[in-house]
Amino acid sequence: MFVIWIKFLLIWLLYFTKKAITVDPNLYIFRNHVMKKPHSARLAGKYIALDKAHDEPLNRQLYRSLREGITAGLIPAGEKLPSSRIFAANLGVSRNTVIAAYDQLALEGYTSAKRGGGTLVAKAAKAFANREVTDTVPASPVFSNLGLLLQKDLRSDRLEVSHFQTGSPDGSLFPSDLWARLLRRSARLGGDLGGYEHFTGLPCLQEAIARNLVQSRGVVAQPEQVIVVSTAQAALDLTARLFINPLDIVLLEEPGYLGMRIAAEAANATLISSPVDEFGIDVSLLDCKKYKPKLIYVTPSHQYPLGHVMSLERRLALLELAESAGAFIIEDDYDSEFHFDGDPVSSLYGLDHQERVIYVGTFAKTMMPAHRVAYIVVPPALIAAYKGAVRNAGCVPGHNIQQATAWFLEEGFFRAHLRQMTGVYQLRRDQLISSLQAWNNPALDISCPAGGMQLVVKFDAAEIQDDSVRNNGLKQGYDFSRLSPFYLGAHRRQGLLLGFANMQHKNHDAAMRVLKSCIP
Amino acid sequence: MFVIWIKFLLIWLLYFTKKAITVDPNLYIFRNHVMKKPHSARLAGKYIALDKAHDEPLNRQLYRSLREGITAGLIPAGEKLPSSRIFAANLGVSRNTVIAAYDQLALEGYTSAKRGGGTLVAKAAKAFANREVTDTVPASPVFSNLGLLLQKDLRSDRLEVSHFQTGSPDGSLFPSDLWARLLRRSARLGGDLGGYEHFTGLPCLQEAIARNLVQSRGVVAQPEQVIVVSTAQAALDLTARLFINPLDIVLLEEPGYLGMRIAAEAANATLISSPVDEFGIDVSLLDCKKYKPKLIYVTPSHQYPLGHVMSLERRLALLELAESAGAFIIEDDYDSEFHFDGDPVSSLYGLDHQERVIYVGTFAKTMMPAHRVAYIVVPPALIAAYKGAVRNAGCVPGHNIQQATAWFLEEGFFRAHLRQMTGVYQLRRDQLISSLQAWNNPALDISCPAGGMQLVVKFDAAEIQDDSVRNNGLKQGYDFSRLSPFYLGAHRRQGLLLGFANMQHKNHDAAMRVLKSCIP
Repeated sequence: MFVIWIKFLLIWLLYFTKKAITVDPNLYIFRNHVMKKPHSARLAGKYIALDKAHDEPLNRQLYRSLREGITAGLIPAGEKLPSSRIFAANLGVSRNTVIAAYDQLALEGYTSAKRGGGTLVAKAAKAFANREVTDTVPASPVFSNLGLLLQKDLRSDRLEVSHFQTGSPDGSLFPSDLWARLLRRSARLGGDLGGYEHFTGLPCLQEAIARNLVQSRGVVAQPEQVIVVSTAQAALDLTARLFINPLDIVLLEEPGYLGMRIAAEAANATLISSPVDEFGIDVSLLDCKKYKPKLIYVTPSHQYPLGHVMSLERRLALLELAESAGAFIIEDDYDSEFHFDGDPVSSLYGLDHQERVIYVGTFAKTMMPAHRVAYIVVPPALIAAYKGAVRNAGCVPGHNIQQATAWFLEEGFFRAHLRQMTGVYQLRRDQLISSLQAWNNPALDISCPAGGMQLVVKFDAAEIQDDSVRNNGLKQGYDFSRLSPFYLGAHRRQGLLLGFANMQHKNHDAAMRVLKSCIP
Repeated sequence: MFVIWIKFLLIWLLYFTKKAITVDPNLYIFRNHVMKKPHSARLAGKYIALDKAHDEPLNRQLYRSLREGITAGLIPAGEKLPSSRIFAANLGVSRNTVIAAYDQLALEGYTSAKRGGGTLVAKAAKAFANREVTDTVPASPVFSNLGLLLQKDLRSDRLEVSHFQTGSPDGSLFPSDLWARLLRRSARLGGDLGGYEHFTGLPCLQEAIARNLVQSRGVVAQPEQVIVVSTAQAALDLTARLFINPLDIVLLEEPGYLGMRIAAEAANATLISSPVDEFGIDVSLLDCKKYKPKLIYVTPSHQYPLGHVMSLERRLALLELAESAGAFIIEDDYDSEFHFDGDPVSSLYGLDHQERVIYVGTFAKTMMPAHRVAYIVVPPALIAAYKGAVRNAGCVPGHNIQQATAWFLEEGFFRAHLRQMTGVYQLRRDQLISSLQAWNNPALDISCPAGGMQLVVKFDAAEIQDDSVRNNGLKQGYDFSRLSPFYLGAHRRQGLLLGFANMQHKNHDAAMRVLKSCIP
């Protein structure tokens, strides 16, 4: 008995010497050990430590302390909590503080009112206390079949901006101050920008995109055919989900864009591909009866990754194939805006008279990838389906950025920026090509794309593997994009995809030296 | 012969009197009729009309005119185009203009180079001309099974902001000027905000959210567990895709949130539900052996739509159920931040020791729906899966808005705004309740939610149907949210969900009069 009193004394000392005792479960357990059955009055003085200097309101501190005591089993189920008046006096706080904490505990079910007054710790608390000591091994997820496909990322590339990065514009040349003004202007519209509505895009942006597409791409569409989404990837994913049943066939270009392969795989499609030559995809060898595609994905303006323009003949063959197979075509026009030699190439969408072409565009390259604004132009028969799908998938950009993008287009900044960047990128392409040619390496087959942001260097010597070139680069902090992963089949050309759009003049020579050192 | 010469003369006159003849297919056909086999020299003078005053560059106009002539079959396949020198002279333009137009046609495959010089219209053009007259009936889409589900929108509600709209904050009280400053500041970071990387969220926002959640929701998570997505709907959709195989069971609250039902249906799940009472979802009657859920969706802080807080006992029962079924729980904490009576209720996530809870939060209610920023806090074992899934689904908010949101949180504006709005919404709740109570209508069972943005009025009289109340409202321009559609089963309570957060004082009386007139 005497020993217990000594311990009590020590705890009192501890309490008064330390203004705030942080809530430590071990401390509770120590105390619990001392007093097997804490009485409510003792609880007030010893189990709870409140810090008046702390930001957290006292009632919240009290609530948390009591809750932890309850869930740790230190204040057992059925225990009556002290009356708020006595408790408040013991703690040196106002009675309202205690009442607020009690109310909160009751609200969350930690306590229940006792018939005739008073607050009891709820029975469930005991279950919780018991639960505490049981198995705490993290649960392992069992993903769905499509979920396993959805989380697979085929793109091994690092995403940080680096020299030779593909598809990446030079952000330092984007008119940040102007953009800042437009964003500010949009923010000042406040609630007028809308709430949950406009999930297929702000009408002003739909109109601006439609107007721009008529002029620059020969895509004639009503604004309501334009579905604004956060990224081109979202456009591809939505389209694959809408059309593809497991094992349905998707026809891809060989080599082709990985983003579409991912979207098609996530829908569990059967992937087939047709080879690409300098005229674009060649579907003449495809046995359409045997392999009847449901969706066809192409990049006619500027084939990804090889950079060729699809010829009229091939375009017509493709439209015919789609007709005979009953397929829809995804035309990904990802960087058609940057065209150096000749004007931009017309869209496949403009040639199509059966409304089979789903046109996908993005502002990631013409403005900034970080904006996350892209769009789909869908045939009228598909508007309702995409409208429902976009709302249910929730891949919608914020209204501020949509409004600012609309102004950027409508007020002429977009065209001016494109004009400037096209000039810059053309210079950078020429510089990259002349540097590559200056090496006089017969093993390098250098393409000269008529537009876009990257070029392909194929390795003509069998001993050069793009894998090893990439590994050499990684050692020097460069992540070269390899050509071979873009092939679906076994026959893969080795080579590199070299982005030049983000290659600033000051970095050019050093980057070229690294590149040269990486190619055996 | 004489007649033909007269016609020639007329065309020449037409050409010289009109500076620009717009490109009109009918005109071509008329001319074509005149000259069955147009010679290249004649082509130069008569088939093409260029307008020097027009914005469109001359080479582009020429290219378009020739392309239209080719695709319309007026310049037949195999026809040799005039030499650029003669053509330029005839048209009165520089030779470079003609060369540029020819290059473009060749690039797109409309023409091909003739051995020994000269440009021939390609054979494919003929196929195109023939194609022109064939079937132009729009193709009809055949959607996938999941695609049909994905496009189905269960939410019949109009989305325009209106009185009594649920889940909609008062945008007029959002600090637009401050937001404008933050957006401007973020825009000035330019390229430093990143490019394609950070697709699970800007690190600064992940950190800000994690910090905020520890303090306000008892959610202890590392920043990398926070996955930023565009909308809460995207979070639900992604989660359903990751976990649900067709016919897998998803357990919902009855009544419950439609957004989750949509996401689960889009994954072709089997939906089951357990009833909600004043303590939250009651799973005690669920035969877990027969119906083993894979995912469980709950709104513990503030049940949607009824508004109850889930008790500790029910929380523990739910965690136990999840454990025995091997299920993961989605905790949708959609408006827990607005809490009037007592402090915010703790999260289920904080009680869970098996890392089975996937926490979904959104800034749509605490800031603005139009921002389209939401987040998922996932257990560590799920980070990799969500990372891949978010990148492949592409539902990522723009970096400007992410950065501005991070500052809004970190610099104390978020808490200040919440505090202000909580006060405003509490007043509006009280005002709505006292107005409803003043009617003394015994058929109305009025709930008083401890927080949130809406309350439920149940109809206790069998003759009042929420369908007819809504129809009465539509006639007066009000779209009341009915209670009955939130029920999955046949036993549906009739009632209304009345949003008060966006009910400004000046509109209150008029809105109440309309509401009263709609309830029989």
